[in-house]
Amino acid sequence: MTQNPRQPGRPRESIDDAVFAATLSAIAEFGYTRATVDRIAATAGVAKTTIYRRWASRGELITAAVVDSFGPMPLDGDDLDELLAQGIRWVAAKIADPGLGAALAGLFADAINDADLREILATRLQAPFLETLAARLDAPETKVRLLMDATVGTLLQRMGITGEPMDAADVDALVGMVRGLVRG
Amino acid sequence: MTQNPRQPGRPRESIDDAVFAATLSAIAEFGYTRATVDRIAATAGVAKTTIYRRWASRGELITAAVVDSFGPMPLDGDDLDELLAQGIRWVAAKIADPGLGAALAGLFADAINDADLREILATRLQAPFLETLAARLDAPETKVRLLMDATVGTLLQRMGITGEPMDAADVDALVGMVRGLVRG
Repeated sequence: MTQNPRQPGRPRESIDDAVFAATLSAIAEFGYTRATVDRIAATAGVAKTTIYRRWASRGELITAAVVDSFGPMPLDGDDLDELLAQGIRWVAAKIADPGLGAALAGLFADAINDADLREILATRLQAPFLETLAARLDAPETKVRLLMDATVGTLLQRMGITGEPMDAADVDALVGMVRGLVRG
Repeated sequence: MTQNPRQPGRPRESIDDAVFAATLSAIAEFGYTRATVDRIAATAGVAKTTIYRRWASRGELITAAVVDSFGPMPLDGDDLDELLAQGIRWVAAKIADPGLGAALAGLFADAINDADLREILATRLQAPFLETLAARLDAPETKVRLLMDATVGTLLQRMGITGEPMDAADVDALVGMVRGLVRG
């Protein structure tokens, strides 16, 4: 670390960027459970108090890093099949970024028993995608929710089984599976 | 705890059972990340060394508790659609047991960056189900693997989103989705 952690002139965005990058690289290196806030702070070269001034909990920090890394979903064109294929391939590629798949899988595992974390994930991560997809696909919310859970769940589960992102042939099969769900 | 942790006459199976129950109840209470071996040992009323004599790592212990809790998959009859529906509803019901869904989701999240844990999961948890399903469904292994990842992944993802098991209507939709995958 060449940067001084307490450097007063360092702008807020640059600290956010450094902490987000450190969060995903610590998860890629140590795995979700062992990527503690201590390790993330050390990797980012900032004090632990700097992190907790910005994010109230480890779950909130990791969610913010994931949201920042995803960015908005590209959904171009009007053909339903094409939109679905595009969206699923985009998520599959994002989840393959180092640390991102494990961050997402770990957050959802912890969220099963943590209502506060579920609220953070629902509002900051899921809601924008849910709205965009429901509008573009013109589908009821229950169907869009199942489509999202099936896509993200299958992709993450595959990474847990193989340690690798899903290959292109299986992503194609996943696209076909989700198309059937939307039409059915 | 009324039992003496070092009681010499306590049979091995009863210690295994106590530790497995404590593992899942600690995960249900504290969540996957915070259910440490210290907490599991305290809940089971055994010494931490007793746990590490039996299971080399936290991941190995949690995998053993999950395998014990699942037991063998019931697959009766010869109708392919009926077998699939039966298997998926059985997994959905199991994953709803307190602690079991979060244990499974957390293991697969950590496994993304942990080759040793992936090996443990592949041999002790996944292989028996994979063999049974490939034989009963008379399907190629790539298809059975995708079927398993889609089923388990979707069910776990839904628990992370809602904190609850998937409802019956969505399990029916999942059965339809996976049937399309097997036929396609």
